Parts: sequence; C-alpha cells; structure tokens
Amino acid sequence: MSEILVVGSLAYDSISTPAGKSDRTLGGSANYFSLAASLFAPVRVVGVVGEDYAETDMKLLTDRKVDVTGLQKKAGKTFHWAGAYDGNMNEAKTLQTDLNVFGDFNPELPASYRDSKYVFLANIDPTLQLRVLEQVSKPKLVGADTMNFWISSKRDELMKVLAKIDALLINEGEAEMLTGKTNAIAASDELIKMGPKAVVVKRGEYGFVLRTAEGFFILPAFPIANVVDPTGAGDTFAGAFFGTLAKSDRGLDLASLKEACVNGCLMASFTVENFGVASLRELSLAKLQSRGEAFNTITRL
Amino acid sequence: MSEILVVGSLAYDSISTPAGKSDRTLGGSANYFSLAASLFAPVRVVGVVGEDYAETDMKLLTDRKVDVTGLQKKAGKTFHWAGAYDGNMNEAKTLQTDLNVFGDFNPELPASYRDSKYVFLANIDPTLQLRVLEQVSKPKLVGADTMNFWISSKRDELMKVLAKIDALLINEGEAEMLTGKTNAIAASDELIKMGPKAVVVKRGEYGFVLRTAEGFFILPAFPIANVVDPTGAGDTFAGAFFGTLAKSDRGLDLASLKEACVNGCLMASFTVENFGVASLRELSLAKLQSRGEAFNTITRL
Repeated sequence: MSEILVVGSLAYDSISTPAGKSDRTLGGSANYFSLAASLFAPVRVVGVVGEDYAETDMKLLTDRKVDVTGLQKKAGKTFHWAGAYDGNMNEAKTLQTDLNVFGDFNPELPASYRDSKYVFLANIDPTLQLRVLEQVSKPKLVGADTMNFWISSKRDELMKVLAKIDALLINEGEAEMLTGKTNAIAASDELIKMGPKAVVVKRGEYGFVLRTAEGFFILPAFPIANVVDPTGAGDTFAGAFFGTLAKSDRGLDLASLKEACVNGCLMASFTVENFGVASLRELSLAKLQSRGEAFNTITRL
Repeated sequence: MSEILVVGSLAYDSISTPAGKSDRTLGGSANYFSLAASLFAPVRVVGVVGEDYAETDMKLLTDRKVDVTGLQKKAGKTFHWAGAYDGNMNEAKTLQTDLNVFGDFNPELPASYRDSKYVFLANIDPTLQLRVLEQVSKPKLVGADTMNFWISSKRDELMKVLAKIDALLINEGEAEMLTGKTNAIAASDELIKMGPKAVVVKRGEYGFVLRTAEGFFILPAFPIANVVDPTGAGDTFAGAFFGTLAKSDRGLDLASLKEACVNGCLMASFTVENFGVASLRELSLAKLQSRGEAFNTITRL
C-alpha cells in the first residue's frame, strides 16, 4: 500500500437539482477524491481554504486519517460554486463561481509529501498541475483530470501535462472536445496517443470506457433510478480508482485498472444518491462490496 | 425453432451523416429486422411497397428465405424518409417524410401467417399494431417498438398495446417521454408496470438496459470508433433479439433474454458501420460470434 497525493479544490457548493436544493454544502474535487480514496489507502491533500472553512469539515478528512499538512488556510473566503441541473442531470449549469482564496492558489508541497508514489492532479489550471508534479521526487503513477475551460484556454500547458501522466480521467464531453472526435471510443483512441498509458472516459449515467494499449474495458454505471445530485461523481470515481491502485500497488497492470474502474463506478453511484459528500460520509467498503456483487449479476450473462 | 412474424415499414431512405450521404438507400424497420432475424430463424414479413420497389431489394429478403407472402405491392411509390445526423449522431433530424403507399397501409395477414409464434410489431401506428395482433391465433411471445409521434398522438391505443405484449423494445428518449422519467433506469421501472414482462431500453452508443421482474441486465454497446450511419440500429437490435429468442424457443427465461440482448447489441454494431442495410447484407453468424468473443473480453473483469 502506498500514499496518494491529491491536489484539487475544497469548496462550498450551492446546488439545485430536480430533487431539491442544497445551500453551501461541502464540495470540491479534493474532498470527494479524499473521502473516496481514503477508504483504500492513506491520502495527502494539497489545497487552500478560507477562514470560513468549518472545523467539522476539516475533521471529516482527519477522521479518515487524511494528511492535511498541505492544506493552506488563507485570509478570505473558501471557493464557492453555485450550479443547477435540470432534466436528465447530464450537465450542470454554472450559476456563480466565487474563486475567493482559490483565485491565487499556488500549491506548495510540504517536505513530507514529496515522496508520494501515487499522485492525482484533479481539475485545476494545468500550470499548477505541472508545478505540483515538479515537487514530487519519484512518483510511481500520476493521474489527472481536466475541464473544458483549460482545454480552450490552456491547451499547450495541458498537452504538457498529458505527456507526463500515466492515467487521464476525463468526462466524455471534454474527451470529445479535446480530440475533436464525436464519440468516446474515437476520442480515447486519440487520447492514448497523447501520452497517458491509461485513459478513462467517464460517461456519467452510462458508465465508463477504459482504453489502454491492450484495448478497451467498458461497463455501464450501476443503475440508480433516483439520482439526487451528480456533483462530484467524477472526482469520487477518481478517488476510488486511485485508492484501489494504491492499495494493490501493482502499477498499471490491466487487472488492477479494471478493478479500479469498477470501484470508481460503484462509489460514484453512491455519491449521486445524495447531495454533496453526504453519501461518502457514511460509506463503508462492505457496502461498496455488496453493491459490487449486485453489479456483477447485472452485467454478466 | 419457431417462425417470427414482423410488421413494419419498407422504405427508401436518403441519409446524410458526417461520414457522407446515401440517396434512396434501402431501409425501413421491417427490412432491418428481417435481415437481422433471418440469420437465426424463419421470418414472415407484413408490409407495403410501391411500384418503384426494386426486384433486387425483394430478392434480398427471399434469398434469406424470408416469407414475403404478406408484402402488399400497391400503386404509387414506396415510403421515403430523408434525415440528417450531425455531431454525435444520437438523434436524426427528419428532413422529409413521404408516406406514399404507407399512408393508408392496412396490414392483412395471409392465412399462412396466423399461426406465428413470435410476433414483432415494429414502430407503426398502435391501432395497426393491435389489428395485426388480432389476426394472430396464439402467439407465444409478442414484442413491440414505438416512437415519440405515437406517444403524443395515440397514447391510449399505445397503452392497449403495452397491456398485450410480452416485450417492449424502445429508445431511451422515448422511454423517458412515455413515463415522464429522466433516466432509463427509472423509466424501465415504470414501463415494466404497464404490461410487458421484459423491457429493453435501447441507448444507442451506450448499449441497453433490460428490465424484468427479476431485475436488470445492462451492458454498453460494442465500441465502434467510426460510426457511419446509425439508422436502423434499433430495428437491427430487435431483429437479432427476436431471432435469438425464436431460435432457442424457450420463451422469456432470463438466460435467453440476456443472450438475445447481447446479440441485438452486437448486430446493431455492424449496422452502424455502414449506410442502410449494407452491413447486414454481408453479415454472417460467424462474424457475429467473433465480435461476441471480443465483447466478452471488453466487458469482463
């Protein structure tokens, strides 16, 4: 088992979906990721919060033994995002973004983090992703996510990130945008040429596509009739994915990647059942395993 | 092995996709269905064509031993549909519909068809679907498809159809429209209460959801990077689905349904690789089986 370093956002989100509303609920990629990954392996988090960040929210991480030495507390307010989903919940409409202390975030790794073997660069400015990577001495497996904003505004920097990472985890729409292709299969065929040895295209309610040099591994999402809030599903997937890989610590062999994808998919199915990180607070590996057995029945002849 | 009766359209389609154009190519639900199903079991077709219907197109069916006794040839032109797909090809934009002889189609079953055990009512007016059903003496398994037009204009008749059939095969968007639900899982939970013992929600590039009283069977589509023309994929799925069930002739047991869905999914993946019925002309069960083995690798841990 190895430690996982994650850099990403810690936020308060105001979310509206057909199932209801949740005001200033705990969110941010680093929170979803850490809560998911810490069920499998030790996590070290790098990020920034404001003075309004609640002690209880910090405790949520430390109770899971997440190392928060790399969490900066700055004068000002925590990053706040407001978004709304309608209909099929496949896409959020951003209503408001208050970067606050996240606006001039400059990730600095504590000395104790520099030997991290597993590194996940959640969706932040690719320049910062590269800066984090420079501070890690000898990572064994580096993964990253990104989004439409960086694809259009920082494409060159993003391509440098892709050349340096082992695994890319990316939404279907963004995979298509980055490659100019119109489906996840063609897009992953292109992405695998850009550097990563493994590409995971996250398809929301439709599951995922894993693409490696050996070929594809594709499964649907676990069936959830009542999706309450899809926010954080992708970061949850990444957390369980990295947690699984760090726990087995066998690198990028295909069997580990497949198991990592299935755990990512399953854990994301819990996240969407409630607002924010509510489901992840309660989740145990036993519950995940039980859903995994149901998933086998659902997807096997 | 039992005979399959199908009622549906025979058409000439003018299709435009990002991959190219195909003018007045052979199409229609009954053609896609018959070419797919006839690889597994004998097919009897009910439909109407115009005077312009080519002998070679008729021969395509008879070469496959499809019984065309129930095919009416009427004065006038064959049904013509013109449509265009863009981007991700998930939805066709209808440019023109010339019903022609299909406009006053009144399906009449030859006496030799009335003992058909497997019956598929492709997407036509639910009033006509019911009329066909009345003419079959003792079917063992009845399936149907439908579309947005009938859902909004003939809902009552459609509900009568649903009460009488064993299996509903329906597109995701139409499943959601019919139930007022916003995802395929919730929609299939509702549809199963409306009569059918098996509901198959067809998700295009994302595969399918099979819902029975016993639960779900869900798989992605076979990965196709270069989708040329998605027209007829759903009817191809239905053809291979019914063909598989009629060949094994074990009714609606879960193992048969699962195999039927996988064959439907695989055969549809061939259809989308070329315009119209071009792929189905060449397809053999050996090719299907070979793709099935690849599909197993792609979807298994």
